[in-house]
Amino acid sequence: MSKEMETGKMGARALARRAKEASFALAALPGDVRRRALKAVAKALKDREQEIKAANERDLEAARRDGLQAPALKRLQFDAAKLRDVCLGLEALAEMEDPVGREQMRTELAEGLVLSRVACPIGVIGVIFESRPDALVQIGGLCIRTGNAVLLKGGREALFTNRALFDALYAAGVQAGLPEGFAGLLTTREDVGEMLGLDADIDLLIPRGSGAFVRYIMDNSRIPVLGHSDGICHLYIDAACDAQMAARVVVDAKTQYPAACNAVETLLAHRDARDALLAAAAALRDAGVRLKGDARAQALLVPEGIACEAADEEDWKTEYLGNVLSIRVVDSLEEAIAHINRYGSHHTDGILTDDDAAAACFAARVDSAGVYRNCSTRFADGYRYGFGAEVGISTGKIHARGPVGIEGLCSYKYILTGHGDIVEDFAKGRRAFTHTKLRG
Amino acid sequence: MSKEMETGKMGARALARRAKEASFALAALPGDVRRRALKAVAKALKDREQEIKAANERDLEAARRDGLQAPALKRLQFDAAKLRDVCLGLEALAEMEDPVGREQMRTELAEGLVLSRVACPIGVIGVIFESRPDALVQIGGLCIRTGNAVLLKGGREALFTNRALFDALYAAGVQAGLPEGFAGLLTTREDVGEMLGLDADIDLLIPRGSGAFVRYIMDNSRIPVLGHSDGICHLYIDAACDAQMAARVVVDAKTQYPAACNAVETLLAHRDARDALLAAAAALRDAGVRLKGDARAQALLVPEGIACEAADEEDWKTEYLGNVLSIRVVDSLEEAIAHINRYGSHHTDGILTDDDAAAACFAARVDSAGVYRNCSTRFADGYRYGFGAEVGISTGKIHARGPVGIEGLCSYKYILTGHGDIVEDFAKGRRAFTHTKLRG
Repeated sequence: MSKEMETGKMGARALARRAKEASFALAALPGDVRRRALKAVAKALKDREQEIKAANERDLEAARRDGLQAPALKRLQFDAAKLRDVCLGLEALAEMEDPVGREQMRTELAEGLVLSRVACPIGVIGVIFESRPDALVQIGGLCIRTGNAVLLKGGREALFTNRALFDALYAAGVQAGLPEGFAGLLTTREDVGEMLGLDADIDLLIPRGSGAFVRYIMDNSRIPVLGHSDGICHLYIDAACDAQMAARVVVDAKTQYPAACNAVETLLAHRDARDALLAAAAALRDAGVRLKGDARAQALLVPEGIACEAADEEDWKTEYLGNVLSIRVVDSLEEAIAHINRYGSHHTDGILTDDDAAAACFAARVDSAGVYRNCSTRFADGYRYGFGAEVGISTGKIHARGPVGIEGLCSYKYILTGHGDIVEDFAKGRRAFTHTKLRG
Repeated sequence: MSKEMETGKMGARALARRAKEASFALAALPGDVRRRALKAVAKALKDREQEIKAANERDLEAARRDGLQAPALKRLQFDAAKLRDVCLGLEALAEMEDPVGREQMRTELAEGLVLSRVACPIGVIGVIFESRPDALVQIGGLCIRTGNAVLLKGGREALFTNRALFDALYAAGVQAGLPEGFAGLLTTREDVGEMLGLDADIDLLIPRGSGAFVRYIMDNSRIPVLGHSDGICHLYIDAACDAQMAARVVVDAKTQYPAACNAVETLLAHRDARDALLAAAAALRDAGVRLKGDARAQALLVPEGIACEAADEEDWKTEYLGNVLSIRVVDSLEEAIAHINRYGSHHTDGILTDDDAAAACFAARVDSAGVYRNCSTRFADGYRYGFGAEVGISTGKIHARGPVGIEGLCSYKYILTGHGDIVEDFAKGRRAFTHTKLRG
């Protein structure tokens, strides 16, 4: 039995221990080995296309039998186009500048005593992701690029596809010089529970999935968690706003992919933005969106023949994940900002305005990872941001915020190099700090 | 009763709520207001020197009555020299480049659609610190500089001094234009317990103090925690190492301030570094350090007349916080690295060597915030690193690592500016991403 198959049989604890050991070796590998490993994984995936396709067929059959809906089936499907895309992604990662070892700053603390800050891997990353097999390759690739060991737990619907992809990735990686244990595949729900307690070996958890699931992870582990539990995004139509632009952007933000975390849930409108709100509401109605509004929104829309149910406090806290939108009329920009900071999930919020001062105030005061002007919230995504890929989107403010790509998977260390330097010399005034900035 | 006095009477929950509200206003303040506030605080402290001195006398009297030891009394004392130092520190912070609003990257995602990443405050920081009143001013100053609201809880021995310092800082800050509630003083143990549950309003906790205390905080709050629970630092004497240099650096790292987290606890020595180990051990003995060693260390030292008790597994996990040091002889650099990664606290660890390859391997493989060569571990400190001040030292790898200064108190946000751009145009192939890097 091949090594890579065995990993499927180890428990989370043993895999995490192995991954931690591997992480020390990974951190010291020349960048070229990681680059070659990425190319080797791409090649292995292409070589094993038939095997992967058969595994995916098996998952798809079971999913159809279980009555999975069309969008979920589409995400689960791993066809030739998806294989091509993930391989292109791996090759793009291989060509990127090596993030590990990049010097971020350099200071001469005193004569002959030089401090350098250098990017390094975080260590062991645990990623729990939905039933989308392409995510396994993307996440695995990002971790190889950044020198992190990774534990991968995908959705159970994708079990056979994930196994086939993982086996190809693992075997090719090890053959290209990555240490045994650099990646591990977890397959059961029990594995997830066990992971939460492995804070000695896992440095970071990135859970993707429902809000309740992510909150559960955050509440039940000492391991730092990066991610978002909710995506309650807003658009605010300011007093000075072109009506056609508002309609166009609001419809895209709501309907382009309503189940996404960056879809808009609540539309705020200044009381003087009547025309823009009417245009947006009519366009939403035409796009099949169910509208809910506060009393002022209803008073504006209903007489114009636009159906609008009553919204209440609960609506402001709801991520509909579908074609429903709540609307609230506000008296001022300040009231809109206060609403967003109170009810939002600090993910992505936008202002639609021609007024530069209002846009600047919105950007400074809205406490969200993304603050947008005159564009759809749906742009909040690592690929669209030009990061190549993302492991997730963080709504926390510690470490990485927003879409998390290569930079968010790196930490740094301080390297201090001297010639027998001691603190006592400085404490006694025999030597003095110079703190000369040499870089950064 | 003045506003600033009232804050001393509010509970943690109310103070945190106020601080959160203030944080939104703080984030949008012009940098010049923060600069003026720092200068105003320095002036207020000098103006209130007599009042502060009287408060400190009261704390010192009580501490002497309670039998506090000399080093603790020295930390508690807030004399004219300390007042001068903290005021110089505030003025230096005032002159620093404003970190808030600094653009970190800028990318044109597509024609007319520009993404910018800009540094911003984290929000509300809760800092729990020891009975060292100068820390209150340093932490308060760092938070003003970075636009963060702050909740300050100092050691109870410094209660009256902290109140006097806080009142001066708060009144001067508000008068200079900072929003009401930008800082809050907590005074009771119950306040700390209450803080742990305020994850809706507090964005980051920075506890300083004993390992057990910091671990308790980490285990009992959903709020992200920055800090370190232990400081088990190592020095490793490599085979190729000058004996006099080793003796000099080891003595400094152990004795310059043995209670500090960056003092060395375990000395590792290559089996071929006999002369350097003997020189270091003799110097340690002469400096009054009690030595504990494994069998090989004892076999080397005892025949040379250097007393060395037996060390066991527990010693490798112990932060002595005093003049005790454990010694272990290893067969290789790899064994030293494995020992450090296994027993260390990922704080600061050094290698003493003339061998560049060994130093490079040590720097890459040791998983610590600071990896040093040929210098004392005692340099791990924000002031010595040239950060002006520090709020603490982090041994975590998420967000800031090592001494945390201004940069670690900042987050960032993505600002996306368009002209009605929608994702559907890209999904349908009507437009294409350019991802042109404009900056960073």
